[in-house]
Amino acid sequence: MDVHRELRQGAPEAVLADGKTPTEVVEIVVALLDAGAGSVLVTRADEETRAAVRERVDGSHEDSRARAIWIARGKPPVRGLVVLVSAGTSDAPALHEARIRAELLGTTVLVQQDIGVAGLHRLRLALPDLERADCVIVCAGMDAALASVIGGLVSVPVIGLPTSVGYGSARGGETALRAMLCSCAAGLAVVDIDDGFGAGTIAARIARAAAGTD
Amino acid sequence: MDVHRELRQGAPEAVLADGKTPTEVVEIVVALLDAGAGSVLVTRADEETRAAVRERVDGSHEDSRARAIWIARGKPPVRGLVVLVSAGTSDAPALHEARIRAELLGTTVLVQQDIGVAGLHRLRLALPDLERADCVIVCAGMDAALASVIGGLVSVPVIGLPTSVGYGSARGGETALRAMLCSCAAGLAVVDIDDGFGAGTIAARIARAAAGTD
Amino acid sequence: MDVHRELRQGAPEAVLADGKTPTEVVEIVVALLDAGAGSVLVTRADEETRAAVRERVDGSHEDSRARAIWIARGKPPVRGLVVLVSAGTSDAPALHEARIRAELLGTTVLVQQDIGVAGLHRLRLALPDLERADCVIVCAGMDAALASVIGGLVSVPVIGLPTSVGYGSARGGETALRAMLCSCAAGLAVVDIDDGFGAGTIAARIARAAAGTD
Amino acid sequence: MDVHRELRQGAPEAVLADGKTPTEVVEIVVALLDAGAGSVLVTRADEETRAAVRERVDGSHEDSRARAIWIARGKPPVRGLVVLVSAGTSDAPALHEARIRAELLGTTVLVQQDIGVAGLHRLRLALPDLERADCVIVCAGMDAALASVIGGLVSVPVIGLPTSVGYGSARGGETALRAMLCSCAAGLAVVDIDDGFGAGTIAARIARAAAGTD
Amino acid sequence: MDVHRELRQGAPEAVLADGKTPTEVVEIVVALLDAGAGSVLVTRADEETRAAVRERVDGSHEDSRARAIWIARGKPPVRGLVVLVSAGTSDAPALHEARIRAELLGTTVLVQQDIGVAGLHRLRLALPDLERADCVIVCAGMDAALASVIGGLVSVPVIGLPTSVGYGSARGGETALRAMLCSCAAGLAVVDIDDGFGAGTIAARIARAAAGTD
Amino acid sequence: MDVHRELRQGAPEAVLADGKTPTEVVEIVVALLDAGAGSVLVTRADEETRAAVRERVDGSHEDSRARAIWIARGKPPVRGLVVLVSAGTSDAPALHEARIRAELLGTTVLVQQDIGVAGLHRLRLALPDLERADCVIVCAGMDAALASVIGGLVSVPVIGLPTSVGYGSARGGETALRAMLCSCAAGLAVVDIDDGFGAGTIAARIARAAAGTD
Amino acid sequence: MDVHRELRQGAPEAVLADGKTPTEVVEIVVALLDAGAGSVLVTRADEETRAAVRERVDGSHEDSRARAIWIARGKPPVRGLVVLVSAGTSDAPALHEARIRAELLGTTVLVQQDIGVAGLHRLRLALPDLERADCVIVCAGMDAALASVIGGLVSVPVIGLPTSVGYGSARGGETALRAMLCSCAAGLAVVDIDDGFGAGTIAARIARAAAGTD
Amino acid sequence: MDVHRELRQGAPEAVLADGKTPTEVVEIVVALLDAGAGSVLVTRADEETRAAVRERVDGSHEDSRARAIWIARGKPPVRGLVVLVSAGTSDAPALHEARIRAELLGTTVLVQQDIGVAGLHRLRLALPDLERADCVIVCAGMDAALASVIGGLVSVPVIGLPTSVGYGSARGGETALRAMLCSCAAGLAVVDIDDGFGAGTIAARIARAAAGTD
Repeated sequence: MDVHRELRQGAPEAVLADGKTPTEVVEIVVALLDAGAGSVLVTRADEETRAAVRERVDGSHEDSRARAIWIARGKPPVRGLVVLVSAGTSDAPALHEARIRAELLGTTVLVQQDIGVAGLHRLRLALPDLERADCVIVCAGMDAALASVIGGLVSVPVIGLPTSVGYGSARGGETALRAMLCSCAAGLAVVDIDDGFGAGTIAARIARAAAGTD
Repeated sequence: MDVHRELRQGAPEAVLADGKTPTEVVEIVVALLDAGAGSVLVTRADEETRAAVRERVDGSHEDSRARAIWIARGKPPVRGLVVLVSAGTSDAPALHEARIRAELLGTTVLVQQDIGVAGLHRLRLALPDLERADCVIVCAGMDAALASVIGGLVSVPVIGLPTSVGYGSARGGETALRAMLCSCAAGLAVVDIDDGFGAGTIAARIARAAAGTD
Repeated sequence: MDVHRELRQGAPEAVLADGKTPTEVVEIVVALLDAGAGSVLVTRADEETRAAVRERVDGSHEDSRARAIWIARGKPPVRGLVVLVSAGTSDAPALHEARIRAELLGTTVLVQQDIGVAGLHRLRLALPDLERADCVIVCAGMDAALASVIGGLVSVPVIGLPTSVGYGSARGGETALRAMLCSCAAGLAVVDIDDGFGAGTIAARIARAAAGTD
Repeated sequence: MDVHRELRQGAPEAVLADGKTPTEVVEIVVALLDAGAGSVLVTRADEETRAAVRERVDGSHEDSRARAIWIARGKPPVRGLVVLVSAGTSDAPALHEARIRAELLGTTVLVQQDIGVAGLHRLRLALPDLERADCVIVCAGMDAALASVIGGLVSVPVIGLPTSVGYGSARGGETALRAMLCSCAAGLAVVDIDDGFGAGTIAARIARAAAGTD
Repeated sequence: MDVHRELRQGAPEAVLADGKTPTEVVEIVVALLDAGAGSVLVTRADEETRAAVRERVDGSHEDSRARAIWIARGKPPVRGLVVLVSAGTSDAPALHEARIRAELLGTTVLVQQDIGVAGLHRLRLALPDLERADCVIVCAGMDAALASVIGGLVSVPVIGLPTSVGYGSARGGETALRAMLCSCAAGLAVVDIDDGFGAGTIAARIARAAAGTD
Repeated sequence: MDVHRELRQGAPEAVLADGKTPTEVVEIVVALLDAGAGSVLVTRADEETRAAVRERVDGSHEDSRARAIWIARGKPPVRGLVVLVSAGTSDAPALHEARIRAELLGTTVLVQQDIGVAGLHRLRLALPDLERADCVIVCAGMDAALASVIGGLVSVPVIGLPTSVGYGSARGGETALRAMLCSCAAGLAVVDIDDGFGAGTIAARIARAAAGTD
Repeated sequence: MDVHRELRQGAPEAVLADGKTPTEVVEIVVALLDAGAGSVLVTRADEETRAAVRERVDGSHEDSRARAIWIARGKPPVRGLVVLVSAGTSDAPALHEARIRAELLGTTVLVQQDIGVAGLHRLRLALPDLERADCVIVCAGMDAALASVIGGLVSVPVIGLPTSVGYGSARGGETALRAMLCSCAAGLAVVDIDDGFGAGTIAARIARAAAGTD
Repeated sequence: MDVHRELRQGAPEAVLADGKTPTEVVEIVVALLDAGAGSVLVTRADEETRAAVRERVDGSHEDSRARAIWIARGKPPVRGLVVLVSAGTSDAPALHEARIRAELLGTTVLVQQDIGVAGLHRLRLALPDLERADCVIVCAGMDAALASVIGGLVSVPVIGLPTSVGYGSARGGETALRAMLCSCAAGLAVVDIDDGFGAGTIAARIARAAAGTD
């Protein structure tokens, strides 16, 4: 028996750039690709780090909102649908990190932005998409009321992605996290504040499994 | 000039029973009535305290859900409409404390219970009442999403009354309080956790002023 | 369009007994059954509340560890496999609440108790079950290290269920919750402390969807 | 029935600049004006953002203390009186944000600055103004004692606006927020730390309603 | 040189009963008296503990509000004046503990109760006493606004004694403690929540020193 | 009766520069001097602010460690002795702010730096000074053990001045503050973190009163 | 390779009774003894649980202060010296739990109680014992100043054992824990609040290793 | 008797550069060397401070990852083995600070980096080293699960060194600290967040004592 998860040929890999120098990030990315990684996603990468990767590795893709850069060599066949809903435009960094991660894992991602609770009209327009999703990610800061509202409307698994948007009692996402955790909406589980990577990972796994054997 | 608020003839008075013995509460109530108080409201009074007041003072009224007992001698003319909305049945103690306080201050109070975010259908039925209110109190625990939803629907002043309902990340009402404070809904101000008395006071003042000079 | 989730014939319903009198719980249970609920699960019900339900409603089932009582009239066809892993015996209340909820939603649940990190030997024995699950729930208190260890071993969605087991720096489950949220294991989402109901709900949804159209 | 609050012709609109680029703010402002907004208020806008708006949109007004820039095309008829009291000069940013918001909503705002508790003499001079207000906003940091003192003196609705002024145990406004929430003064409701926008909104609504039908 | 504070003949001694059995408390009291202690003050002593001391030791004095029992054999000559001001009747336990301690240390203590900020009239009546004090103790819970108000009026040392009175955001005295610490009133230092013993000790030392060499 | 503290001829005045522009600080200083202030102390003033004051006002004094600048026109006759003890060199900013404030109030201040608990030898050398003080200020960060040690050695009033020195669990002075508040040493009261100004104020008042009528 | 710690013949075992029924505890104890455990220590056991174990298992030993009951069948040869120092009598539960655990692991334990910082005289008397220890445990609540003082005096490893003794800012041991963690004394590591078991375990391991190969 | 720890000839000394100017650090280093210190280790020293020391003192050594610079004049004979295990590359600063400190105290240090829980394979390879250590330091951030896993595998003393690696619920190392403190692994004691210096100190003392008389 082998009780570990070692680097597998063709597996998707991820690097958290935060707290590493651009040089360190580049070295890790190159090592992973050399070892046969299918895709490598670098998250929380500032412009300098992305530039370093971009110059060294051919065929990289970038998204400055998500502060991400990635190389996708052998993407898995696309399967399953994740719908990503956000409350406001300031949620973009976490939202796009989740989107990119889920796409690299081989899922279709549909984004519905700026569906705040104050504008329930837009939510109504988004309902048909929500109802055909295999998994929904709700990305919201401040009081995260959107998570409860959507959790009460759909019966598929919902992943709450609290964001650090807001000031004062928003407390850098703490209130959104707490509100999602104690939401009365059933079928809701939560990832860490601004953890788009985590949300994208579990949502893709759920959606792919729901759409066929994984 | 006289910079103080002394006992005025006919004024409504309140006694917080919490942390006082039944005997102490009775003595204070009697003293206030002797001094000419128009109404005396005792809040956070357990059964023993209410019994002590009931036996000593004639003409008292009680509400066990609100843990309140009161004497109303000269109620002011009723003016203004407060609509009190609650998310669930467990919010009853704070809700009824707010209702009784607002009624004693001379306001009509309309109660709409159990309008959770998960049941937006009921909210729709309540909208006509919300739209004719002079002031709305939203009474909710856990993630208090109802405050944001209602705050986005009405344009009258909304008073958020967070309750200690829930467990875990509800943190005894802390999350509801924080969520209401950082709600993106404009026109919302908040009182302390379970402070039905405070919510009823300001709501009645707002509603009476809106319905005519106070 | 109808933006709400109203009581549907045959749907599973749940009642949180905490903060309600036995009489109130019984009334709600009866009303739900009369309205045609398929199953009604009462959680956080002490002995007195369970006795009240048991006496009034025929055909109820109980689990004292989970502090739950339920009526299952029309269980859905069973589909999907949830594996529930716990770190120690004190996690039983949350674990069994999750198990019962998931079973009522129509899922097979396999329980692996007492797989603490200090005894990795047992974890090895549990691996084959973990690998064929559609969804894994890890139920752990204190430092919740088990969630990271299991999250690193499996590639199905993992739901972290932190428990209030432990004293001192365990802080009533706060540390387990935080540790799960910032775990480096990918594919892990978390529910609130001791929220077996929530964990069972989302796990059953994930497993049923993975095992066929829901 | 239409359960939403959509953009209405002539309505006042607001944009929180914090966390948006100057370009994004300008685009939103222009879009709102094109859609027929009566006034657009940009809050938490640094010099660079204000410059971007100023250059692109004619007829803007600014207040650097409030970090605000706004366009007022069709101000509503002025009605009602809000009196804004602050404890010290450092409260100016929140105070002026509240003032500008309330004025744009069509209310007269009277400002009484630097009325610290340590200088009760000034409070005495301000009493006549406080007594004729339709709503009072108390803007204070640190221990926010002024809110309790004023709440004990007036019988109109009082909105507490805690500010992040102070250091150490002031904790960025947390102590002022907490102190206002548990103040023994009746008739006091609170907005979030430094949320001049929220305070101005509800105060204007209260004052306008008190001065006539809204 | 002798770097310690050993039991001195005639010195005042104190025993914190909290967390000790009545038997243990009695044994310590007897031992201190046998060793020649001038006075022994037992604080936080419930009725059972006080009864145990009362029965065993002759000449004890008690105060049930302060939960204190004491023996005073050789009180020092009285010197200096401490004025003790409290905001409300619920502050009595801490207030009387402070009073008894200060009196046992040989100071005159003058008590002014129920001088809440909402009733500035009473404060005015208390001013002459405050002005002739050698030290003032302000005993207040909730937002503790009284400490700032009094700190702004007098120029003698003021000791803030926060109490655990109140609920919700009063947080068991935390808000009162924080508010006192960040008060803008100069000349104010603070003891721990409900620490009447500590407040009485330092106030008596200050007052005695001010009234003559100690 | 006059319930306020207005500017008195010859009184010492203080300005907190933090959060004010250099220009604003200069204007306030000039206004205070014009009104006849005896001394004006500007605290938390960075180099730019101090330069602005220095250029505009003649005869100012500065201390860069304390980040303070002051003008002393009519110092009161010196009376009483304050001994200021600090645990380490990093406590210098709070220590010197306390020293300057106490000196401007007319007290002799003796400074004993770097008397950490780990070096009890130095404490022994400082004992004679501690024993003749009218008031002792203990200035310490981290675990503030020095406050307990000194509080156990002397019988004069001790003012605890917690500092934000340290990292990790020192939590910016929070642990020092808490440790001082719950110290078992009697006769200790505490000011806010880094509040040298407050410590200097009350210590000078205590010392001056002890040395003669104030 | 075998990556686990399974029950070994003759090994010391421990059971945390907290949160288990007396019956459950007895069953676990019997199972461990049947499996060949050398000693079984039950901690946090109330009188009822201890009685249940006592009746069922022959040859048990008890300590009511430590709330512990244990069976010692094959104690290891005694080696090494642990000196256990406590600040006050209320620290007894944690202190004795640590002592019993260390003794069961085969170490000599010397206890020095009531060595508060306020009585440095006693510390002096204890120094010779401290200096010949292989490991020192300092058991202290409130501000835990004793840990820093002792940490500065000895050069052997010191284990800090914070206790939940005290009220107010002692915060159930949090302040003692924080103070120990940020103590400037080198060579100090800390276990959880009231975790006598943990302190005894590591201290015994250190002492036994120091006294010879383990 | 001499109750203090004064500078001894040849003793190792340490300087925390944080919060001191480069000039101050240099002066202290020189003074310690002049007084005969055997080694002087400067921690938390930025490049500027290290340059200042390097230029002034001959024979210094540096480690930029650890932000440390040191002079070793008379290293003690090497004795004992400390194994330092870290979860990820971002833990390097704390890890190397611990390594350098332990080496300067005269211990052999073996480093095993990047042994995350997600890669138990590497842990298996490290086991032989862990088993022959006299003391193990586990250096980990986020959920610190590695500490529990290793604590369950070895029977030597383990020192937990939590690091501030991670974001969101990692809370700057707080979660790692809490998780280590409440870990169910016996024989684990903890130092403060990022306190490599403290971990190195106690680990070296333990290891040296285990390897022979200290």
